Amino acid sequence: MTSERDLIAAIARRAAPAGADAGPPGLLQGIGDDGAIWRPTPGTDSLVTTDTMVEGVHFDRRWHPPRLLGRKAVAVNISDIAAMGGTPRFALLSLGLAGDEEQPWRQALLDGLTGAVQEYGAALIGGDTVRTTGGVMLSVTIIGECRQSRACRRSGGRAGDSIWVGGPLGLAAAGLELCRRGLGKDAAWAEAVRAHLDPTAQVELGQRLADSDLVHAMMDLSDGLATDLAHICTASGVGAEVEASLLPIPPLVSRAAAECGADAMTWALTGGEDYHLLFTAAPEHDQAIARLAGEVPGAAPARVGRLTGQGGVVLRQPDGSSREIGYGGYEHFS
Amino acid sequence: MTSERDLIAAIARRAAPAGADAGPPGLLQGIGDDGAIWRPTPGTDSLVTTDTMVEGVHFDRRWHPPRLLGRKAVAVNISDIAAMGGTPRFALLSLGLAGDEEQPWRQALLDGLTGAVQEYGAALIGGDTVRTTGGVMLSVTIIGECRQSRACRRSGGRAGDSIWVGGPLGLAAAGLELCRRGLGKDAAWAEAVRAHLDPTAQVELGQRLADSDLVHAMMDLSDGLATDLAHICTASGVGAEVEASLLPIPPLVSRAAAECGADAMTWALTGGEDYHLLFTAAPEHDQAIARLAGEVPGAAPARVGRLTGQGGVVLRQPDGSSREIGYGGYEHFS
Repeated sequence: MTSERDLIAAIARRAAPAGADAGPPGLLQGIGDDGAIWRPTPGTDSLVTTDTMVEGVHFDRRWHPPRLLGRKAVAVNISDIAAMGGTPRFALLSLGLAGDEEQPWRQALLDGLTGAVQEYGAALIGGDTVRTTGGVMLSVTIIGECRQSRACRRSGGRAGDSIWVGGPLGLAAAGLELCRRGLGKDAAWAEAVRAHLDPTAQVELGQRLADSDLVHAMMDLSDGLATDLAHICTASGVGAEVEASLLPIPPLVSRAAAECGADAMTWALTGGEDYHLLFTAAPEHDQAIARLAGEVPGAAPARVGRLTGQGGVVLRQPDGSSREIGYGGYEHFS
Repeated sequence: MTSERDLIAAIARRAAPAGADAGPPGLLQGIGDDGAIWRPTPGTDSLVTTDTMVEGVHFDRRWHPPRLLGRKAVAVNISDIAAMGGTPRFALLSLGLAGDEEQPWRQALLDGLTGAVQEYGAALIGGDTVRTTGGVMLSVTIIGECRQSRACRRSGGRAGDSIWVGGPLGLAAAGLELCRRGLGKDAAWAEAVRAHLDPTAQVELGQRLADSDLVHAMMDLSDGLATDLAHICTASGVGAEVEASLLPIPPLVSRAAAECGADAMTWALTGGEDYHLLFTAAPEHDQAIARLAGEVPGAAPARVGRLTGQGGVVLRQPDGSSREIGYGGYEHFS
């Protein structure tokens, strides 16, 4: 392993320049000092989120290509900024290396990471590198902005709201299981495997929804619809009813579930890591939401149920039966 | 180990409330949503820094009490904000646990962490918890503020400047070595052991120096005077001459070095982790700096040399001999 100084230099070469004439607007000092300095855009609130990925817990180096791993570490954080309707501005990286990584592997990891930061319109402005005694660790912090008082939160949901997801459910869970089974390179599963290895944050969708003023509550789908909806219900003091028949489960997920002897519905509800937006809005705006969200590239909005006055998250089957699925309830009963 | 949700709840209970009537000024959303939201103070620039501590690399659980470990993870980051003359505002924590930590240990770690955040006038507003396959990992991000365009950087040093340190050198290195040798509980070494286990960030000193407009370059002493001064020299395009006779090495450090068969001068120059400020100012302001810095509780300013037009960091001995010490040069020759 090269020295920490060499590694920091390699990161700094990929990082944003700073100053009046170069680099992203507002950035006064990037990597190279005790901290980074920026001037917030007048009329905005600042947003920050941080998320850590640990080898052997959140990812597997055996099948996760380093470039895509770097991209994912960025995307899952940007997704949190997207879920508030914000614009990602700056990224910080804490990179933990075990010491057994080959130089090309590290290079590809940094390429993916800095490439994704740029793609989302942000700039890498700081971080540190450490040696770990376990495996690789990637801790990313994203700083974003939104118009004052316009950040979307989890707590604004109202009984009667329609519940929406920004795209199909279960693909990432299918992709993970396919990779586990050594089927990750099979072209037939490419879409699911990509959803697991290289998720996309719905930044434009989040911004459009926030600008529309129609959204009451919003978050991103990281833990699965059942748990994430429970978060919105708890924060908003409402319940939720999800219609099983409305869940956007792609045929590919059903085929993968059959291949793996798994249950597509379980993946869709509890698999997690879809990183689409989950949001609620008044039912009289169903058409407006469908139109607005449908125009955003990469978004495939689907209404999946409604918020209720009762507590808990309930899944209703086509036969009229229903059961509690929030906070692990789904696994418990299935 | 309790669940991640229980742990997050335990952290959230210690975190800042948010809203118009409660909590720190400007904080709109703390822990509990996809990200935190705050409104920057008008007329300020924003600062951010992040630093990660890994068990077995940066600390040893066998002798580092959890409460002090939590405090140190905060202090070393706040020290970077102090080094820019900033005010710490908000903290984020990524906490990695191996799973074998006892409940009281985790409790004490969080107590120390949140206690230190409060002591420095900041607020815990976010973070995440992960399981690790190695040991404990603490990644802290601090967001701060300073008056617009007034952040002190490493790059402002000028040839002829006096070089100052904010306190004694070598205590933390002595403390580490004493702990390694099992002497950490010996009252005779308490001051050194405390410097290692529970360092203090010189926030007030940094602010007073930044406000004074006298300081040209500033950073904090984390890697040791030799390396840190080399950073200032590189960033400022100058060299430095350090007078061995001026180094503030406390008698306790010399006694500990004798006890451990080590060299006090090496500890002072390369031991690192003193977390005092290192700064430069024009020599005509020597008296003003000494007075100003001397008034700050906990600060013990000492002038240790001067910046030069030559490259490199040189240590001058009382006998007139000198040698290069920057970037590991000291170890190389000693």
